[in-house]
Amino acid sequence: MTPSSTAVDVRMACRTGKLTGPTPGLARGFVQANLVMLPAEWAYDFLLFCQWNPKPCPLLAVTDTGGFEARAVAAGSDLRTDLPGYRVFFHGDCIDEPADVRDYWRDDLVTFLIGCSFTFENALLEAGLPVRHIETNRNVPMYRTSIDCKPAGRFAGPMVVSMRPMLPEQAIRATAICSRFPLAHGAPIHFGDAAALGIADLNRPDYGDAVEFRPGEVPVFWACGVTPQAVLMQAKPPFAITHKPGHMFLTDLRDSELRS
Amino acid sequence: MTPSSTAVDVRMACRTGKLTGPTPGLARGFVQANLVMLPAEWAYDFLLFCQWNPKPCPLLAVTDTGGFEARAVAAGSDLRTDLPGYRVFFHGDCIDEPADVRDYWRDDLVTFLIGCSFTFENALLEAGLPVRHIETNRNVPMYRTSIDCKPAGRFAGPMVVSMRPMLPEQAIRATAICSRFPLAHGAPIHFGDAAALGIADLNRPDYGDAVEFRPGEVPVFWACGVTPQAVLMQAKPPFAITHKPGHMFLTDLRDSELRS
Repeated sequence: MTPSSTAVDVRMACRTGKLTGPTPGLARGFVQANLVMLPAEWAYDFLLFCQWNPKPCPLLAVTDTGGFEARAVAAGSDLRTDLPGYRVFFHGDCIDEPADVRDYWRDDLVTFLIGCSFTFENALLEAGLPVRHIETNRNVPMYRTSIDCKPAGRFAGPMVVSMRPMLPEQAIRATAICSRFPLAHGAPIHFGDAAALGIADLNRPDYGDAVEFRPGEVPVFWACGVTPQAVLMQAKPPFAITHKPGHMFLTDLRDSELRS
Repeated sequence: MTPSSTAVDVRMACRTGKLTGPTPGLARGFVQANLVMLPAEWAYDFLLFCQWNPKPCPLLAVTDTGGFEARAVAAGSDLRTDLPGYRVFFHGDCIDEPADVRDYWRDDLVTFLIGCSFTFENALLEAGLPVRHIETNRNVPMYRTSIDCKPAGRFAGPMVVSMRPMLPEQAIRATAICSRFPLAHGAPIHFGDAAALGIADLNRPDYGDAVEFRPGEVPVFWACGVTPQAVLMQAKPPFAITHKPGHMFLTDLRDSELRS
């Protein structure tokens, strides 16, 4: 698997067990997606949650109940096998991290595919803007905030944000660029004072790795696709499956198709 | 009721039976909404339909099952009484057009409020652009098209569009303005050749009134909030309530709050 592989290459490598590692940088230019599988009885509340919280949860696709092909965005795919890693939750607790979920599959599951920051990071890199965690080979730093998502049925919880240090003029260009990708978290939600989001220490992210700041840089915060996982853990549905963080689903959509 | 009334004034006039006529031009500057009430068993499919078809069906609010106050957009409202007119459907047939729906109310209903073209028409008028049906005191012409909405569960059907004649340079300015109102149908979906949308004769709209063209004007087409009613009639849920066309729900939102 290389940056020049296609999305189909990556899905097939997952399906045949050849790829079990994270997907950043693979099949460059194809849209990667967060995955959430829920019993149909919970699907309405989750769909409404995504509707009210489009910045952390921009919906790319929803399967029919019991369907495991993401027809609209990846013809011929099998959502049970085509990701390199999954997380299986019972009542909000992660009980397994398997490489496929055929053994856990149930006919009442609905799968939600949610846009991912990799799409806008590619656009930032192409514009010559810094993406520090990529430059320094780390995972993006992510923080639980004091901002509540808009609740929907049984789903509620704090917004999780990702953070990238930038000079103010870079943050302004990044805002203009990311505004054009509403299905990949869109424009930043905040910059500057981390305490305004309830973040006590930028050096201690809740997920991912801390990154360095250079002179003049301020933190810039984007709504993050980890939000639905945090909300799932809080709502504790009896059963749920997600992707393993960083181990995303490769769609056949091109990043440029997501540009508004 | 005048253009300077507030949304609360209009809702109260409906509730007390003083207003039973159409709402265009009332409480200028407040967001008006299309209304769809469906049994909870049909709500997931309809929510998904709105998600996949945001141009004809931009969602402003969804109530909890059995809730009849639009808390998020109109505190203190009663959705059963606060519109000047309703339509009641059994199995896709309109069987009544009452002034309130307290007698039809069921505790399993979910109410969807959907953005309306009045919001962007106000913005067009403020920009000095022509809105012919308002100038000539008619209803906007609307057409069923050959464009299929993206189906969702039991809901499928053609997109309905509204049409406004404009000079090309006006259409371009209107596109820029309407792009900023994604929750009020957003940018036009087409201009020029009506046959490309499967429209045989612009002088014979499927809903509303024909309007005149002036020299150099081309037809400009927007996705229309009548689409969900057309789709409801096709899907034939056992029970549904909508607003009576032109008899909208007045929210406390300001048009400017819908600007992206």
